[in-house]
Order: sequence, then C-alpha cells, then structure tokens
Amino acid sequence: MKNTFGSSLETTIFGESHGDYIGAVLDGLPSGLDVDGDFISAQLSRRRPSGKISTARVEADEYKIVSGVFEGKTTGTPLCILIPNENRKSGDYSRGLPRPGHADYTGYVKYHGFEDHRGGGHFSGRLTAALVAAGAVVIPALRSCGINIGTHIARLHGVSDAGFSADIASEVRALSEMDFAVLDNDAGERMRREAEAAADAGDSVGGVLETAVTGVPAGIGEPWFDTLEGVLSHMLFSIPAVKGVEFGLGFAIADLFGSEANDAFTVTDGKITTATNNNGGINGGISNGMPILFRCAVKPTPSIYKPQMTVSLPDGEPTELLLHGRHDPAIVHRARVVVDSVTALVLADMLAVRYGTDWTSSVCAL
Amino acid sequence: MKNTFGSSLETTIFGESHGDYIGAVLDGLPSGLDVDGDFISAQLSRRRPSGKISTARVEADEYKIVSGVFEGKTTGTPLCILIPNENRKSGDYSRGLPRPGHADYTGYVKYHGFEDHRGGGHFSGRLTAALVAAGAVVIPALRSCGINIGTHIARLHGVSDAGFSADIASEVRALSEMDFAVLDNDAGERMRREAEAAADAGDSVGGVLETAVTGVPAGIGEPWFDTLEGVLSHMLFSIPAVKGVEFGLGFAIADLFGSEANDAFTVTDGKITTATNNNGGINGGISNGMPILFRCAVKPTPSIYKPQMTVSLPDGEPTELLLHGRHDPAIVHRARVVVDSVTALVLADMLAVRYGTDWTSSVCAL
Amino acid sequence: MKNTFGSSLETTIFGESHGDYIGAVLDGLPSGLDVDGDFISAQLSRRRPSGKISTARVEADEYKIVSGVFEGKTTGTPLCILIPNENRKSGDYSRGLPRPGHADYTGYVKYHGFEDHRGGGHFSGRLTAALVAAGAVVIPALRSCGINIGTHIARLHGVSDAGFSADIASEVRALSEMDFAVLDNDAGERMRREAEAAADAGDSVGGVLETAVTGVPAGIGEPWFDTLEGVLSHMLFSIPAVKGVEFGLGFAIADLFGSEANDAFTVTDGKITTATNNNGGINGGISNGMPILFRCAVKPTPSIYKPQMTVSLPDGEPTELLLHGRHDPAIVHRARVVVDSVTALVLADMLAVRYGTDWTSSVCAL
Amino acid sequence: MKNTFGSSLETTIFGESHGDYIGAVLDGLPSGLDVDGDFISAQLSRRRPSGKISTARVEADEYKIVSGVFEGKTTGTPLCILIPNENRKSGDYSRGLPRPGHADYTGYVKYHGFEDHRGGGHFSGRLTAALVAAGAVVIPALRSCGINIGTHIARLHGVSDAGFSADIASEVRALSEMDFAVLDNDAGERMRREAEAAADAGDSVGGVLETAVTGVPAGIGEPWFDTLEGVLSHMLFSIPAVKGVEFGLGFAIADLFGSEANDAFTVTDGKITTATNNNGGINGGISNGMPILFRCAVKPTPSIYKPQMTVSLPDGEPTELLLHGRHDPAIVHRARVVVDSVTALVLADMLAVRYGTDWTSSVCAL
Repeated sequence: MKNTFGSSLETTIFGESHGDYIGAVLDGLPSGLDVDGDFISAQLSRRRPSGKISTARVEADEYKIVSGVFEGKTTGTPLCILIPNENRKSGDYSRGLPRPGHADYTGYVKYHGFEDHRGGGHFSGRLTAALVAAGAVVIPALRSCGINIGTHIARLHGVSDAGFSADIASEVRALSEMDFAVLDNDAGERMRREAEAAADAGDSVGGVLETAVTGVPAGIGEPWFDTLEGVLSHMLFSIPAVKGVEFGLGFAIADLFGSEANDAFTVTDGKITTATNNNGGINGGISNGMPILFRCAVKPTPSIYKPQMTVSLPDGEPTELLLHGRHDPAIVHRARVVVDSVTALVLADMLAVRYGTDWTSSVCAL
Repeated sequence: MKNTFGSSLETTIFGESHGDYIGAVLDGLPSGLDVDGDFISAQLSRRRPSGKISTARVEADEYKIVSGVFEGKTTGTPLCILIPNENRKSGDYSRGLPRPGHADYTGYVKYHGFEDHRGGGHFSGRLTAALVAAGAVVIPALRSCGINIGTHIARLHGVSDAGFSADIASEVRALSEMDFAVLDNDAGERMRREAEAAADAGDSVGGVLETAVTGVPAGIGEPWFDTLEGVLSHMLFSIPAVKGVEFGLGFAIADLFGSEANDAFTVTDGKITTATNNNGGINGGISNGMPILFRCAVKPTPSIYKPQMTVSLPDGEPTELLLHGRHDPAIVHRARVVVDSVTALVLADMLAVRYGTDWTSSVCAL
Repeated sequence: MKNTFGSSLETTIFGESHGDYIGAVLDGLPSGLDVDGDFISAQLSRRRPSGKISTARVEADEYKIVSGVFEGKTTGTPLCILIPNENRKSGDYSRGLPRPGHADYTGYVKYHGFEDHRGGGHFSGRLTAALVAAGAVVIPALRSCGINIGTHIARLHGVSDAGFSADIASEVRALSEMDFAVLDNDAGERMRREAEAAADAGDSVGGVLETAVTGVPAGIGEPWFDTLEGVLSHMLFSIPAVKGVEFGLGFAIADLFGSEANDAFTVTDGKITTATNNNGGINGGISNGMPILFRCAVKPTPSIYKPQMTVSLPDGEPTELLLHGRHDPAIVHRARVVVDSVTALVLADMLAVRYGTDWTSSVCAL
Repeated sequence: MKNTFGSSLETTIFGESHGDYIGAVLDGLPSGLDVDGDFISAQLSRRRPSGKISTARVEADEYKIVSGVFEGKTTGTPLCILIPNENRKSGDYSRGLPRPGHADYTGYVKYHGFEDHRGGGHFSGRLTAALVAAGAVVIPALRSCGINIGTHIARLHGVSDAGFSADIASEVRALSEMDFAVLDNDAGERMRREAEAAADAGDSVGGVLETAVTGVPAGIGEPWFDTLEGVLSHMLFSIPAVKGVEFGLGFAIADLFGSEANDAFTVTDGKITTATNNNGGINGGISNGMPILFRCAVKPTPSIYKPQMTVSLPDGEPTELLLHGRHDPAIVHRARVVVDSVTALVLADMLAVRYGTDWTSSVCAL
C-alpha cells in the first residue's frame, strides 16, 4: 500500500520537502460533510513551527482543495488537498553526506541515488502537513458524532506533564485547541526552557505524547490482524521520529500481576464500563467503549548543529558533518497535531468499514 | 484486510479455540522452497505449553499441510496448514459473564452474541499456533539468505535478562532454539520462580520480549505508510496481550539529546554501518543494514483464579466471577515464538515486494 | 491479492486438483446468518459433473465447515470450508507435455517446474467447488434481502436459448434451481445433443452464459476503479475458460446510435426505472436499480481426445500428445453455478462496503 | 480500493469535470526512469478532442508534475500529475434532470445529491486525461524492455477495420502514434464519415477497440483471482462507455470445438510459441509469451442532441430533456489512448509484483 492507507477511507500522500506542492488525496469520505476551511487552517497553524524551539522555516500553508468538495460540502468522491512549498532554500542541502538519524542513507540505498535529497525529500516531516490537512477534514465529522481526540506532551526531555484526570472529556477538548499542549502549564514552561536550552547548545530534545480518544463506540477493530492497536500503530509509526507506541499502561503493564492489570467490568449510568482503564479502552483488539489511551515515543530531532561523523556517498569515506540550515530543536509539540490527525483518519476508516460509507449517520445515532 | 495480512506474501488465519481446526493460508510464497516438517513441529513444540507455568491444556499440534506443497517443496500456490483442536473441554466455559482483560465483552458487542464464546473463540491465543506454523515455512528461507531472528525474555514481572552483546549474531541463533529463551540462565531461573509464585497465588505475570533480526539488507520498508516499524507493529499487536512495541531505544530515546540519540555512520569491514544502533536498524522507516531491534510489552495473562467483578450479559448485572479451567500463569515465554513467526512473515512479505515473488534468489545473491 | 478477493468480505481459496483438500476462507461475513447445509450441498451437486456430457470423475463433495459457524449461524469470524478430493487418479497425468489450451505451460514458467502438475493442480476447475461452497453461504443472505441471481446457458456451440422475458424475476428464481439451466427446454435438448455429439467425436464445446441479478439496490459500485462491471469481471475471468464478459447489450451496443442505446428514465409503480435496459442496470459503474445483466463467453473445454501438437518440457521438442483420463466435453452448464457463486460473493462484498459489516439489516430495510 | 488501483504500482485519480484540477498519483514506480515530457504531451494530445467528430471543448492539458520527479527522472516516491481544467462552461449543466446513459442518476443516489453534477463531475470522461498522463510515465519504461501496446478502432458503427497481420509488432508500434488509429485507412475514412453523419443528425456512435501487446514475458498473472484477464478487465471497465471486454477470440470462441480453439505449442526461433493465438496470449490467467490480444466494446456517447425522456430529481416527474453544450458524437478514437494507458499501468504493476520494485532491470534482462 505504500503511500496509501486505509480500507474504506483511503489516504494517499505525495510530495517532497522542496518540490512545488505536497498534498493528500482522501477517498471514501461520506458525502455531505461540511468542510471547515478555518479549522483546516487552524490545524495547519498548530502544526506550523513558531518561536525559538521550532525551525525558522515557516510556511503560510495556503492549502487548496482541488477536488471532492462542492458548495462547501464533501461530494463523496476523492478530495485532493494541495499545499504549496513556498519557503524553500534548497542550497542548504548538499548531496552525498547522509545525516545521522535521518533517512538520507536508507533513501539512497532504496532509490539508488535518484531520490530528491533536498531537505529529506519525500521523507521530510514537511509531509505531515498534508496529513494534518487531511485529518482536519474528518475531525469535525468525528466530533459531530461525539468522538474527540486530544494529545498532550506527557514528557519532554525528562520533564513530565500531569496525567489525564477523571475529567478526561474536557481535557481532551481543551488540548485539541492548544499550541503547546500540556495539562500542567508549569510543566509546560519547564519543557519550553528545556527545549530552549537544547537549542542554545545546538542540540535537540524528544519526548512522549499521550493521546486520549473519547466517545469511540464499543466494537471497533478486528481480532486479527486489524486490531485497533495494530492499525493505529501502523499509522503512528509513519510519523517521523516515533520509535515506540504503547496502549493503556503499555510497557508498565508488564510488571503487574494479572489481578492488578485486568479491568473489572462495572455499570456506570446504565452503561457497561470498566472500573480501571489499564488496557486503554481496547480488549482483544476491539474498542470497549472506554477512552482509547496510547502514548508515542518521539525521538529528539536528528538535525543538530554539533559535528557528527558520517560516510560520504557513494565512495564510503568517513567524514565529519556539520549541518547548517533551519532545524527544529524540538518537534514533539508539533507532532501532537499529527498524532491527532492520523488517529482521526484511522478511526474514520474503521468506522466506515463497520458502519458503511455513510457512517456518520449510523455513528451519530448510536 | 481483517484476517489476511501482507501485500505480496499474504497470511490468512481462521479458527476458534474449540472448533475442529485452526489454520492458516500462506499465499505468494516463492516456489521451490524446502518445507521442513521437523522444523514446523519443533516450532509448534516451542510454542506449546509445558511445565507448571503453562496451561495444562497441551495439544499434540499434529499439523497437516493440505495444499501448496508438492514433493516436499512449495509450489508457489496457496499453502494451507490445518491444526486440529484435540484437547477441548468446552464445558469449562459458560456464556454471559465476560472475563476481565479478555475479549469476551468486545466480541459480544461486535458479533452481537453470535460469536463462539468457548475459550475465547476466534480471539484465543490458540490461533497463534497457526501463525507459528506459517512462520515456520518461511523462517528457513530467510535463514538460507542469512537473515536470522531471535527473541529473548528481556523482563518477566520485574526480573530482567541480560541484553544483547556484540556477539548478537550467535545469540540470535541460539535463542531461536531455546524453550525458555533468555540470554542469562540465572535470570531465567529467577523468572521461572517468579511465574511459579504467581501460579501458586492463582495469579499471572507478564513481561517484555526483545527481538533482534540480523542480516536484513538495507533498503527494506517505505517512507509512508509502510514503514518497517509500522508494518511490524501492525502484526505484533495482533499477538494477544501485546500492549506496547518500541524500536531501538524506544521510549528511552525520548529523554536523550539528539547528539546522544543519532547513530553516526562509519565503515566496518568495507561496509557502511552505524557506530551505535539506537534507532534499531531503521532510519526513516527503512532498514539500514544494522540489526533490527524491537521490544514488545506482554501483559499478564488475563485468566486468573482470583475472584473478579464483571457484569452479566445481556442483562448488565454486576456479578463476581471465579474462573476454572486450564490457564497459563505466564505466556511471555511462549509468545516469543509467535513474535519470531510474525516477524518472519512480515519480512518475507517486504522482501517479496522489493525483490519480486522469487525473492530468495535475489536476496541470497546480495 | 492473488487468491484473496474482496474488500470488506474477503474470499480466499486454496488447493490443488489432486491434493487432500481444496477449500475457501470467507472473512467479513455478518454474524448471525443462518448457514444452510442442505443448500450448500445442493449447489455443490449442481456444479458436480453428471451424465455423458461431463467428466466421469464425480466427487461426493462432502464439505466440512471447520470455523466461523457456531450453533448453525455465522459468527462473523473467518469461515473455512474444506472439501476433500476423494476420487483421484493421479497416474493419468504425466509431466513434461503441456496440454494446449491449459495452464500447464504458463504454470511451468511461473512456478519453475515446482507446481503440482497433476490434473492442472491449483489451476484446476476443481477449485470452483470451493467458490460454489463459499457462494452458497452468502446466496441465502442476499435472497433474504430480495436479491436473486440466475444464469442460463444462452448459447452452446451455436444453439441459442430464449432470452429473459418481462417476467425475469420468476425466471431468475427458477434457473437457480435447475441442473441444466435454460429458459427454453427444447433449446436445452438440442444443446445436450450437440455436446454429446462432440463427446462422441472426442471433442468438446463451449458456450455463452447469461446472468440476471434482480433486486440490487441503486447506488452500488464506484465511478473509478471499482465499477460494478470492473469488479464483477475481475472475478468472472477467474472462472477457468471464461474469455469474454459483457454487460447489457455488450458488444452489440457498439453498433447502435446513442439515441438507440440510451435507456430513458421513467417511473414504474412510484419507483424510478428505465424504459429499456441496454446498459444492464449499470450507469457510470453504479447500479441503477434495474436488473444487472451480463454474459460470459466460455471456451470449449481444452481437454479433448484428439491428437494435438505440443512441446516437451524442459527440452523443447515438438511432440504429439494424446490425452487419456476423464474430461468434460462441456462445462458451460456446470460453470453457470460458479458464475452465480462469484456474483454473490462480489455483491455481498460491495454491499458490505456501502452498508457496513452488518449489511443485511440495512439492505433488507431498503 | 475505489479510486486507487494496483498492488505494487498504485494509481490514484481525483478530480471533477469542472473543478480546478484533475490529477493522478503514481506510487511504486522504479526510481531512475526518464520522464519524457514531450511524450506525455503527445499522449494527452492524442486523447484530446479535435475535428468535427469530437466535442468543441478542447483543453490545452498543460499538465504539471508536482512530485516524484527530480532532475528529469523518477525518484521512486509518489509522482503526482495535475492537469488544470481551463475551458469550463458550467452554466451548460442544470441540476435535477439526469441524462439517460450517464451516471447522473446513479451518482445522485450514491452521493445523496452532494455530488458535483456539472459535466458529469467525477464520472466525467475528462478524468481519463489523468490516466493517460499516468500511463505516459510508464509506457516508455515498458518499451525500453521491448513491451509495446497498440490499439486500433476495429469497428465503428458497423464499419470494420482490417485485423492484425503477421507483422503485428510493426503495426502495434505504428498505431501507438496515430491520431485516428486504424490498420486500413480506407476503413478509417468510412468510419469518420459514419461519425460525421451521426453528428449531423444530433446523434452519436460507438465501436470496438482491439488491442495487442507484444513482448510481455511468459509467466505474468495469477491463477486466482488476479488473472491477467481479470485485472486488465477490471481497469478497462473503468473507462467510461466500455460495456464488454474479450480476450483472444472472445465470444467467438464459444462456438468452436475444443480441437479448433486450442492453440498447439510449437517452437519458433528456438522459443516456445503457439501455432495460433485464439486464447490471446493467456492460458490459465497467465501470459504465455504470445501477443496479448483483447477487444473492448465502447457504447455510443450518451450525450446526444435529440429529445429524450427522463425523470426530474428529487420529485420524480417524467420530463423531456434536450441537451445543449459541447459533446462528442464519437469517443472511440479517443478512448483507444486510454485503453493503451490503463493497459500499461496494469502491466507495469504486474511486472513489479513479479520482479520487484526495480522491475525494469529484471525485465529488460529477460
């Protein structure tokens, strides 16, 4: 499937960091969805770098929808979004010295040197703007059916945020509108200082993103192989820099006894729920009606201003590399918008598989 | 895709815990592969429960290949493996009281009460025997091309094994033939005692599995969305009880500086390598020629002999549940065979996509 | 996708003519469908050879469902059907002399001589029994929603049957229960004599099958690329010997003026219909609510008892070949059951894509 | 899959007749292919209407490749081609009166009235320009490996062209560069006059296209379900107006004896060939090395200037409809470029499945 993902709702992306456009095609949308241009802009804006802890390359992201929308609503046929690459400085990128931690070397091997190497080319995090725009088409549809997605920076280079509280539903909604999404603003401040210190040192930092999705009906996902965990992780690992994905307690559950890990069933307001949510709202690969909870490990941005050892291509000579150009000392705060977006795309697809092409009417009626 | 996974090499599984057979269909194999019946049996035996820390339900697993093999070699057409379910005690399972931590409740919602509830039905870990048999068809082909997969129990309820050493290639080969796969036998003994103590208490334990794959050529995987991490995690999360997957340093990489996390390129024996392997052999979703490294979090087996709260179906009455029957106090040591198997199936598929249906000749020639 | 077809409802087949079993896996069925064993047997019986114009190899086709059915109903998880191959005479097949019109040569090239060559191996029409059994699981579900499929032998070696009349709905139901399905019994008698004469001459005959599907709701199919015509033809061409597929007037429409070919819209009993049905119930790839009409060209069975020229493998020596063994002088009457079956599988899949996994309730309510 | 087709090489299309752009994304191309802009333009030009027998709407088709090409060669990452819609007269289209023979009614049912109805919207033949552009990227790669595709107008409203001769290889190459592709120029002249007469009468005509592909290596295709016939027909039926597809002798083979239909194997210039090619180069769904031969029935263009009956939407009142605007009295001569293009896309995909992502080097070396 490569650059196309999904079964009933398919997302295709294309583009390179320094090409004319990046873009996405969304195929299999219900017809008649309102397309909220302001929301798409707002989401692109939240993903966009700003301030000292982001790259100095800032794009207006004047996206353009060239198909699939008519009179402000989805037609049900493929929706193509184009985003121009305007602020390009290709001269910053020289060929032949693969940057450690980047895909330069693996891209070279895979594409035999024909890849567009400028700024990471097709591997660039720039393409996540297309995913964010695509996600912004379906997020309002999910919300209208009571499904909300929120992600916070649970950790940034050793600084931890607060966790979700009992009022997770409100927190999720609030997070989705924040620029630097944390539950504890003091922790957020310490995180920013941590990232700025790294920037001052010519270095970079990573972090952990924690996501909650409320309102997903029970029964979504498959036992094999399209478990909710499996399909979500498939897309989440596409986000550059994600190196780990865990659901519920994740790796911490491995040290518990079964009697501690199991989530007892109970009844709340006449609805079957679980007393705890150690399994992150998923049993046997299928949603159980509790909030879906997962965390993504985001590695520190590989572009740093310190000298690094690499090997010249194609001759294979060990060489010291010193990067110039514009880079992010931290991307975890921007990546959270991408996490929300791919989560929305995955859920919309899985709802469409279960409830059919016109899933919104069925899901809203649940 | 549901119960079928893969692009060029497709694996389909079917069956229920208490049906006549479970099985798998492997479609897209190269023709002419030797099918090693003894190896298939040995792999099934390694997955099979034994001793105090496994369920008392032991199956002979007398698998039968009913298509796709002729005169001892693969034909290239679909290979179907059947494994009979012989040791069934369906009377142990009563309907209507979903077991916490299991898929009983989500299965009930998804399938409207028509699911085969006995022993977890189609959700049962029993189906991993079919995956192990399928994996055992391709593992020898991978080995013949120099690709080896090894998994050890990195952690069991708080007891940690040693890590991989510089001699990872030998360790990988040794692990693949062990019944209780650890690098440090003393740690292994402590793990067994930990599991036995849980069994004595009517409880269960989980753990972490760490896998290394050596010999994967550089250039396997896609930038979007079929990253090596994404495709592997998709299948790994199908293994019941897996709740987290991380590559390289995984979640630990989030606390490093970029200058610590990046793997510098160097040259070893005339071949481009990396000086460290924090990224687990994968850059930008694509293998870089270093060992592929990942870890899976395995939750404690949800079947325990302690009273648990649940809710009766369909009436929704809170009820205490006390399980009987035969259950595993730990499955992590058995799950490692499944991890190896699905890893083999994913790699064989990705190699087939890159090198074509007859990938073994191309890969062996690299 | 190879041996797996479908998007939401997936059909996988496996097996060889002279292996232990052939079979099919149906994944993505709604749960709770009644599985009618007698109907499956009846359909297999209709496909089974009988009389002078069929092969002398007759199988009992004692199929066995080994998963996906519980207490007589579908569970919603994969349903695997096995059909044993009992009446095997492998000695009849010698290797190395590819039979003209068969897949022996192309199979040899594709699978490098490792294919199971006995009786056509995986290419054998024997595998259509698995498709018929799979189709027999979904046909009753379609019928319960008012969708009926009927196929008649429109032509057999120059003898033409009558066409569908205004009472197409009754004709479709009647055809589906016939052994030698024709609308005009006299034409049927002439067809049988034609086939018997060919059998006496050691030769074989082909024909044309015409299918009508009534009750398909408007709106099924996609503009690109999953048109109803495209998806149906994809599966229909899998049926061995099918060399042409046409919808509505098909090739004959090419000689009309647009003013003759267009189907004017009108209203019948308060429902929008077309005054003619030259387009076979499909406009722009999507069903319009009229009967779906198509025809398949079935070539004469390639196995004949006359001497034919071939080339020995692998040496490439021109050689005369004289076939022995048991062969069908005509398969067109048997193939019609396969056409009905794959049509049912395609429609069930497309309805599941549009209306969701539990499509029967939505479709019945239309 | 809807608007995405292919397994290893995937083609996605998007756009509407009166939107800003139509376009295609090609994913899975080998890297390093020369992209011949002049050839793309030439192919678009051959598809473009001209003269009295085509629509008066002529587009410059100033396509733009916005990704996947770097320094004149494919990068191996998704190639997106955009084609602007410049010559739009949306006022010509009024809503609510579905045109007979078009997809207006079925689109309305499927998309609930939210579809872009102008000029057929997403159903418009205009989108075939995107397929032609996509095909023009892979045709040179196929040619470089000795694979040539040629299509002629075998029949136009009762006027037949000559058939392929023994010198089919030269004919195929010549056809691919013609504007009105026929083997017999006199027949071509009669066809043009036939189409012009229809145009004068406000009517339209259809025809039959016959295609030959030379140089396809033996062994391409699958026994089930991805037969070469099945996959090709799937895409061919996407071309608007195609209502029938037949391979080799097609429907005519149904009236032959097996002894007449079978293609005897022989040896020509040291290579295994068949003495006749009644099966169109395909046995058991797999290419046998002979030219691939097939025919497509193209119905007369549904847009005519004669009054037709239709039913108003949504109220369902029978109404007379008289079309205005710009329409083609014949499209068969333009459709042949589309047939070549989708054939190229299908073959490139199937070669990539068999020989891997970098299939050109393997195929050229055969």
